[in-house]
Amino acid sequence: MTAPEPCFDIAHLGHVEMLTDRYEASLDFFTRVYGLKLSVEDETGAYLRAWDDYEFATLKLTRADTTGVGHIGYRAASPAALDRRVRAIEASGYKVIGWVAGDPSHGRAFRFEDPFGHVFEIYYDTVRYEAPDEADRAALKNTASAFTGAAPRRLDHLNLLSSDVAEFRRFMQTCLGARVTEYIELDNGRIGGCWFTVNNKTYDLACTEEHGGATARLHHVTYATDQREDILRAADIFLQNGVHIETGPHKHAIQGTFFLYVWEPAGNRVELANAGARLILAPDWQPVKWTQADRMKGQAWGLKTIESFHTHGTPPTSTG
Amino acid sequence: MTAPEPCFDIAHLGHVEMLTDRYEASLDFFTRVYGLKLSVEDETGAYLRAWDDYEFATLKLTRADTTGVGHIGYRAASPAALDRRVRAIEASGYKVIGWVAGDPSHGRAFRFEDPFGHVFEIYYDTVRYEAPDEADRAALKNTASAFTGAAPRRLDHLNLLSSDVAEFRRFMQTCLGARVTEYIELDNGRIGGCWFTVNNKTYDLACTEEHGGATARLHHVTYATDQREDILRAADIFLQNGVHIETGPHKHAIQGTFFLYVWEPAGNRVELANAGARLILAPDWQPVKWTQADRMKGQAWGLKTIESFHTHGTPPTSTG
Amino acid sequence: MTAPEPCFDIAHLGHVEMLTDRYEASLDFFTRVYGLKLSVEDETGAYLRAWDDYEFATLKLTRADTTGVGHIGYRAASPAALDRRVRAIEASGYKVIGWVAGDPSHGRAFRFEDPFGHVFEIYYDTVRYEAPDEADRAALKNTASAFTGAAPRRLDHLNLLSSDVAEFRRFMQTCLGARVTEYIELDNGRIGGCWFTVNNKTYDLACTEEHGGATARLHHVTYATDQREDILRAADIFLQNGVHIETGPHKHAIQGTFFLYVWEPAGNRVELANAGARLILAPDWQPVKWTQADRMKGQAWGLKTIESFHTHGTPPTSTG
Amino acid sequence: MTAPEPCFDIAHLGHVEMLTDRYEASLDFFTRVYGLKLSVEDETGAYLRAWDDYEFATLKLTRADTTGVGHIGYRAASPAALDRRVRAIEASGYKVIGWVAGDPSHGRAFRFEDPFGHVFEIYYDTVRYEAPDEADRAALKNTASAFTGAAPRRLDHLNLLSSDVAEFRRFMQTCLGARVTEYIELDNGRIGGCWFTVNNKTYDLACTEEHGGATARLHHVTYATDQREDILRAADIFLQNGVHIETGPHKHAIQGTFFLYVWEPAGNRVELANAGARLILAPDWQPVKWTQADRMKGQAWGLKTIESFHTHGTPPTSTG
Repeated sequence: MTAPEPCFDIAHLGHVEMLTDRYEASLDFFTRVYGLKLSVEDETGAYLRAWDDYEFATLKLTRADTTGVGHIGYRAASPAALDRRVRAIEASGYKVIGWVAGDPSHGRAFRFEDPFGHVFEIYYDTVRYEAPDEADRAALKNTASAFTGAAPRRLDHLNLLSSDVAEFRRFMQTCLGARVTEYIELDNGRIGGCWFTVNNKTYDLACTEEHGGATARLHHVTYATDQREDILRAADIFLQNGVHIETGPHKHAIQGTFFLYVWEPAGNRVELANAGARLILAPDWQPVKWTQADRMKGQAWGLKTIESFHTHGTPPTSTG
Repeated sequence: MTAPEPCFDIAHLGHVEMLTDRYEASLDFFTRVYGLKLSVEDETGAYLRAWDDYEFATLKLTRADTTGVGHIGYRAASPAALDRRVRAIEASGYKVIGWVAGDPSHGRAFRFEDPFGHVFEIYYDTVRYEAPDEADRAALKNTASAFTGAAPRRLDHLNLLSSDVAEFRRFMQTCLGARVTEYIELDNGRIGGCWFTVNNKTYDLACTEEHGGATARLHHVTYATDQREDILRAADIFLQNGVHIETGPHKHAIQGTFFLYVWEPAGNRVELANAGARLILAPDWQPVKWTQADRMKGQAWGLKTIESFHTHGTPPTSTG
Repeated sequence: MTAPEPCFDIAHLGHVEMLTDRYEASLDFFTRVYGLKLSVEDETGAYLRAWDDYEFATLKLTRADTTGVGHIGYRAASPAALDRRVRAIEASGYKVIGWVAGDPSHGRAFRFEDPFGHVFEIYYDTVRYEAPDEADRAALKNTASAFTGAAPRRLDHLNLLSSDVAEFRRFMQTCLGARVTEYIELDNGRIGGCWFTVNNKTYDLACTEEHGGATARLHHVTYATDQREDILRAADIFLQNGVHIETGPHKHAIQGTFFLYVWEPAGNRVELANAGARLILAPDWQPVKWTQADRMKGQAWGLKTIESFHTHGTPPTSTG
Repeated sequence: MTAPEPCFDIAHLGHVEMLTDRYEASLDFFTRVYGLKLSVEDETGAYLRAWDDYEFATLKLTRADTTGVGHIGYRAASPAALDRRVRAIEASGYKVIGWVAGDPSHGRAFRFEDPFGHVFEIYYDTVRYEAPDEADRAALKNTASAFTGAAPRRLDHLNLLSSDVAEFRRFMQTCLGARVTEYIELDNGRIGGCWFTVNNKTYDLACTEEHGGATARLHHVTYATDQREDILRAADIFLQNGVHIETGPHKHAIQGTFFLYVWEPAGNRVELANAGARLILAPDWQPVKWTQADRMKGQAWGLKTIESFHTHGTPPTSTG
């Protein structure tokens, strides 16, 4: 009997650890302006979540002397699935860090690295968010906590930079069993960008080419909103609060997502996005290829991709 | 080694066959007012789809001397998954109809029945929609066909009536490997309604109690919209076209979906719905129980459930 | 030479004084939940405004031992226009209260009463809102203060109850030079409701029939939102905060406004409304008549008018 | 007795005549893609309107051997107001063309010219749109015709180019009694742009500086939508139909309008815009001044003004 396919060992992107060298300002931004909730704070930083994230934290904001991404956590579908993934990673030749104790937001996790220095972990045991008091209890018992009116509903995806997207793709397929939903193939034959999913979401991780000669950099982290209107309203809130709006609101050609990119005070890029009703339901989905000519058309409604989008990552390099 | 769990053999709800005894009027409604596209018409009826459904047809509108649902098609995740499901169904004791040839919208399918007379089929081989000409080709190659501005983006779910929801739940779990995401438990201990998913959608099938003493009835079929605004605009279009708006727009407490219910000319209930960014990502999701007291509060924003919602199904009975 | 017509002496509805016998709870509701800003508080109560109201206060919340409306303030178009209106009112036979000193929100005002006990005032000198600090300064200099993300953008209209709407119409035309844009004519020949404007808005005051045998009662006060989506989001905020949602969101047949009605803690009904791009631009607009048969159809999308809408006003009567 | 002030002799912008040298393609665009309705066609061209324009035509599309604007029609508030305006224009020294017979869309009109060659007319007698059959009759009797789902609800404004905006301002104040709501004052002291209103709308005509050395050119014509979402949906419709999207959707800093600019097939720029609930209600509104430094910040959310916005007008010049 052949192995069941497709069977997703990994359930979903669980959390991202973001580094900040302006911790107080970043925390103020994420809680007061961007609209996340603070679950708990400790000496290392803050554990944050959107109002409908079911886990205790989906963003760990860490005090650091730099910016960028600390680690990326994916939740496995079951203990057995976690075991299978660990064995696959150990057999892969990719760098293994090994088991680490959990933190306030989840149980023990297995850590490993992609060839570009990004640290990943997979875990199954998690900490579900429990409202500490009546004020944060959801009015509807099928949502995770009190609705605040803020734009972000749940963690959606992140984008990592790598000098070799094709190699990163192999990493994602091997270690996480991820599927490619869309990708950019440049005229020089290189993969300019690649979008991955481990479930029915159109993507939970994207990788685009590093042009700054750096390693282990973050391009952005994104939360999903319920409606496009949430993003338009957020744009006015960002404007009012003096936040640097890098580009948008507009609609991506790739993935068709409605987007808005801003920089939090330490310089990490964060996005709000809305995918509408789009999901990848076809089990035999054929990855969509975008050519360099396609990319020249700009975003879906013609907006040219802003230059800083190709250069700015965190931590910054001397060139961007 | 234990079997991988959760591993979804069934990929998604594929299509619904709806019966109409007012075929011309129903077809006019679905294409001109509701906003589906006609893929092809044959002597038995019309094959319809929303602009971003990837399959050739998601609604088969069948000329008949009655109304209601003909059959419900689910697409399997792979040929092997289809085999596994067939074996599980054959072993289940549920009534098997057996393999049937496909139709213009998909390949051969395995048919079986729930204890209430609803006919299901599962299939893997499908017919992908290919735009026949430039006019119907999508501007963005990651969508299935030309965007028309219409509200429905893709098939979302259906709701079936049964006299014993708990028994229907056993059927869905056994035959389709479906998970329960939310359910109503009445004070008398009966399950008043149950919502099922085979993937990360919050539900693709719901079952509510039959109060009319009938069998094999349909409660409604639903397409998903990208935004809530699409539903508000559709309400004005329905109003303008003299369509019977039964209830909505409003927000369900159960599942939190923004909804609008209308009756197509033959009396079948159809819905437009928007779930926002809500997905079931947790692999260990605990089904949400709604009590009779919860239901007394009405919908999320207090709208009382309209009486016809409890009585009207298709085909109609002498009592509703 | 004939007098110029139409020439509006009255520029717009300026403010409404609302009475509350649960002052602290009402103030908490209006500032924390409904989304108004507190301009100043004194021993009599609180002066509130929406983020884009240009005047210092559009809602005066007054500590009282009852609920309902204190007075209604309209701003004149010029000092000369104010004089003309005062002369017209003095000549009208309606009850004149006379000039009163202003309050923190405007200069001296001329007060008078309709035959049903509602107190009106007209004034020209006003106090423009000036942000006291950087935090409340608008990012865009064509808006009045910092955008907060809250639903209400500006005061829109109010609805007063009277036992004789036709007589109230004569009052509005005589004293304020108001135009009728829409009205309900019942089968018994009575005017069931009447909508008035003094400018290009579709209405800034409505009057509906008092069924409780009371005088001087308030039906509701309404703020305008930029988008319908603001109202849907507000519905979730009201739900989360345990606010009594009376009816909506839905669309009125009369005036076509998208609406949501809630009761603030003291029982006064307040609305959020969105009129889209609708304005009365035709100088020779013919009032739209709605018959009793029209009203039987319910609201635009079929929602039946909730019973409390016909009975609940403030202050309450023994019958509702 | 001093003259009543402010008293608007002009009620609203009534219609714009647009010239096209690609008549069939332009008509197809405006009716099938942009969403206007054809009232009637004659040998000179087509009379078009949005679904809620109360007049028979708000856009006259004229067969021509060039592009740009034919004439601009404003409706007066009354016959007496029309007389007053005619006398004011005759006394002004601006070029008078004189009375012309009406066309299918309105009665006789008085024509005159600004110093830059744009032809204006004012009229009072108009032709109200009457639905010719049941299919175009509005479901709600307070709207002008059947709702189609299309984005444009009513004519909103136009933008004209002139080599001397300050002089154009004098023209608008003298001839139409228009008020300035916002303007750009460049570092060289010139007025770079000016926004005018004759009623409570924030503007119905804008004038920006001509940089092409041409006269009598059009910058764009705009229809208002009910919601911002209508504009986002329209963007996808434009994309699907191969329409040149010049810039947007985004939010203007000036006037705060949410916008989308496209070029119809002959090259005339047309916009869809949404102002939310914003109106100029203050009778003593102080014009908002935007400096060159303000303009350097781009649009409200940071989008840089696209270069063609400064150069492209119709008819085109050799430089743009």
